Amino acid sequence: MPDLPRPNQDALQRQLLDVERLLSRHQLVENLERRQQQPHQALVETITQQQHRARLQAKLDRLHPADIAFILEALPLAKRLYVWDLVRADKDGDILLEVSDAVRESLLGSMDEAEIKAAVESLDADELADLAPDLPPEVVQEVLASLDREEQEQVRAAMSYPEGSVGALMDFDLVKVREDVRLEVVLRYLRRFDRLPDHTDKLFVVDREDRLRGILTLDMLLVNDPEVEVAAVMQSKGLILFGPEAEADHAANAFERYELVSMPVVDADKRLIGRLTVADVVDYIREETETEILNNAGLREEEDIFAPVLRSVKNRWAWLAINLVTAVIASRVIDLFEGSISQLVALAALMPIVAGIGGNAGNQTITMIVRALAMGQVQPSAMGRLLLKELGVALINGLVWGSVIGTLAALVYHNSGLGMVMVAAMTLNLLVAATAGVLIPLIRQRLGRDPALGSSVMITATTDSGGFFIFLGLATIFLL
Amino acid sequence: MPDLPRPNQDALQRQLLDVERLLSRHQLVENLERRQQQPHQALVETITQQQHRARLQAKLDRLHPADIAFILEALPLAKRLYVWDLVRADKDGDILLEVSDAVRESLLGSMDEAEIKAAVESLDADELADLAPDLPPEVVQEVLASLDREEQEQVRAAMSYPEGSVGALMDFDLVKVREDVRLEVVLRYLRRFDRLPDHTDKLFVVDREDRLRGILTLDMLLVNDPEVEVAAVMQSKGLILFGPEAEADHAANAFERYELVSMPVVDADKRLIGRLTVADVVDYIREETETEILNNAGLREEEDIFAPVLRSVKNRWAWLAINLVTAVIASRVIDLFEGSISQLVALAALMPIVAGIGGNAGNQTITMIVRALAMGQVQPSAMGRLLLKELGVALINGLVWGSVIGTLAALVYHNSGLGMVMVAAMTLNLLVAATAGVLIPLIRQRLGRDPALGSSVMITATTDSGGFFIFLGLATIFLL
Repeated sequence: MPDLPRPNQDALQRQLLDVERLLSRHQLVENLERRQQQPHQALVETITQQQHRARLQAKLDRLHPADIAFILEALPLAKRLYVWDLVRADKDGDILLEVSDAVRESLLGSMDEAEIKAAVESLDADELADLAPDLPPEVVQEVLASLDREEQEQVRAAMSYPEGSVGALMDFDLVKVREDVRLEVVLRYLRRFDRLPDHTDKLFVVDREDRLRGILTLDMLLVNDPEVEVAAVMQSKGLILFGPEAEADHAANAFERYELVSMPVVDADKRLIGRLTVADVVDYIREETETEILNNAGLREEEDIFAPVLRSVKNRWAWLAINLVTAVIASRVIDLFEGSISQLVALAALMPIVAGIGGNAGNQTITMIVRALAMGQVQPSAMGRLLLKELGVALINGLVWGSVIGTLAALVYHNSGLGMVMVAAMTLNLLVAATAGVLIPLIRQRLGRDPALGSSVMITATTDSGGFFIFLGLATIFLL
Repeated sequence: MPDLPRPNQDALQRQLLDVERLLSRHQLVENLERRQQQPHQALVETITQQQHRARLQAKLDRLHPADIAFILEALPLAKRLYVWDLVRADKDGDILLEVSDAVRESLLGSMDEAEIKAAVESLDADELADLAPDLPPEVVQEVLASLDREEQEQVRAAMSYPEGSVGALMDFDLVKVREDVRLEVVLRYLRRFDRLPDHTDKLFVVDREDRLRGILTLDMLLVNDPEVEVAAVMQSKGLILFGPEAEADHAANAFERYELVSMPVVDADKRLIGRLTVADVVDYIREETETEILNNAGLREEEDIFAPVLRSVKNRWAWLAINLVTAVIASRVIDLFEGSISQLVALAALMPIVAGIGGNAGNQTITMIVRALAMGQVQPSAMGRLLLKELGVALINGLVWGSVIGTLAALVYHNSGLGMVMVAAMTLNLLVAATAGVLIPLIRQRLGRDPALGSSVMITATTDSGGFFIFLGLATIFLL
């Protein structure tokens, strides 16, 4: 038996290193950069360079489009475009679908309209719809015109659904059968295909008006007597299906919960218009969590790690600006107590501790509540109970950690009053953090907003300003 | 045609509300709580109460185990245990698999050994291995003893692989065929099954020693002439497969990249020992990102939202403690400049701005680098280039935002020197943030650690202490 390759991630990294090694030989890339600067001047490549290029091309021909996409993302711009140029044109479309938005833009920027058209012509309707917003409008028009009427409508349909809806994720690769035929007939029908659509784990049983009557899993098709009729073994009750306007989040949860491979998408008249596959859902889940993690850190979108400096500045400035506004507010709060600080400078050194622990605890609470809300597991009736629990946690943490830090402060500054104020301020700020951590996401949800977005900024702003105010206020009252 | 139900998440929330409504009638729950306090005193329930209970039970009988798991997670402890009591015993095992660790513990705590044994007896080997660490050891022994030798070995094998490995995720539901038979024979063989294992999209072609020779997709089985031999249509080259000791992360990436539904798991001799399905991988991805988001916020593990206060305190204390240590260090840095602050109190109000923007920008950088490292897309050779880019971003952000805030500070405090120190301090602290944001994850990876874990704490500690030191230091030199 031939040795089975194991394309795990390590193997993929080896591929990447191979490509980089081939690229670095004989300054191919510098040549390329020179050529980019003087695009019309043909370069005389040495024979060795031509050999390296041929080896790289042969290597790329053997790789899966998803792997080439990975390698392109990992290469700096000049090398990336050099490799992109060597990729076989029939893989271009699939690769464009796989790469991140930022990298796609850099690749499309290097292609002329004819190349782009050739790359996307071979794509399915749903894939074309995914790419269309990034393509030159003329190319989209031309490609659309070359499709048959049914495909044109599919592309338009797929593009008409908003991002985050089931319709935007669905594809149109359906195998439909009638309920009044025997399995034997279905088996013969399938043999007329060259291959079944990817992720076909079920066939869709429809009537003459294309209305969904049930589903016939390949499982049922294979284990049952071929003489049986479809209607006898299809599943027609309790089908899990969605409309195209439904939220993709809900469909993704259903895939996860019921461990689905594919699912029919039907319109209001139960007419079958598409299907959703687990591959679409896995991509969707990855992108959603990716976005959540990036937003948590204040990045607006995924960033090409080799993006030019100015583009990166643009991706990051909004969050920094918001953060500065909240920091200025906190700074004004401190300024209110200028007199107190000048009398007792230790306050300046201790106040960030009070603010910091509040922000930390508040983020813990808000993360938990946001996740429970996202799962749909928090009922309005539970709000009071959750708030009480979080206040209990805050009280214990405040008294325990407040006492530790308060004792420390009393010893360092030889001032037991200061220690007591620390305990009180830390406890109060943790209670503020718990209250805000429960209320901010719940109120945002009640207002129909995404409870997660910016929740970390809001809680930190609250506990910073709140922490400074409570600590400096208590100190002013009791110590001065 | 019967009305097709649409079990999207809204429907699931309706189910949850229905259950809660049934629960709240006639203080069933309060009765339950009283009964828990006096466990041996039988309660005389009124006929109405019995009716409500019967309706709730009928409702639960109709629900999918995953849906019951969802509802149990959303209920406070007393109601949760009441509902758990009403669930049909044959669903118990599947539900225990679905619920979160914290909720599982609360459910198992309410069952005696016989009940637990009955619940887990019906599970597959891999499922039993998943639950085993949470079960009483005696129960595990008893259930193991009731299995046949092959299953016993499967359970032991599955339990022997560490968390995060392919072996810990795989199952043993394999359909194997020989390569020298006709497809017709395979089709007849499959008809002997009652049903195929979940997520069967391919059959595994093995030799007499169980060594993997190739895979036969159901697709190929269905579209080809039944007279053809398996060997003629099976795929035997470029198979995507993993060993049980491989990292689950790598396998998950392969599922995503190559859009797989199932994948063979083989040992070093290419003997087929199990398979991985997309359902396992989706669960794994969700759990991993869940853990990442929780850790980012300083929560050690998923928390039952209705967990008792003390358990929540335990889940959160470690992070708060670390945060306090770094805050104390920052506080000591401020203390160094006590004299400067007492001379110019505005410093105390402005210093949190410098520290805050550094922490924010540093988190942006570190998040981007950590994600690129996790994808395997950063080569050591790219380190210098990335650092230069981040320093460029930091320089621009520092000069722009520093000037804005510096001007503001100069106007508010009528002190242009203070404004210039703000510009310089913000720019320098952003450069520190960029350097630390690139170096911390790269160094951690070089040392073989997880670059993500605690990266947010480390960067914030650096930019807090660094920001205070730079700002107060510059102010001391130039303003006093």
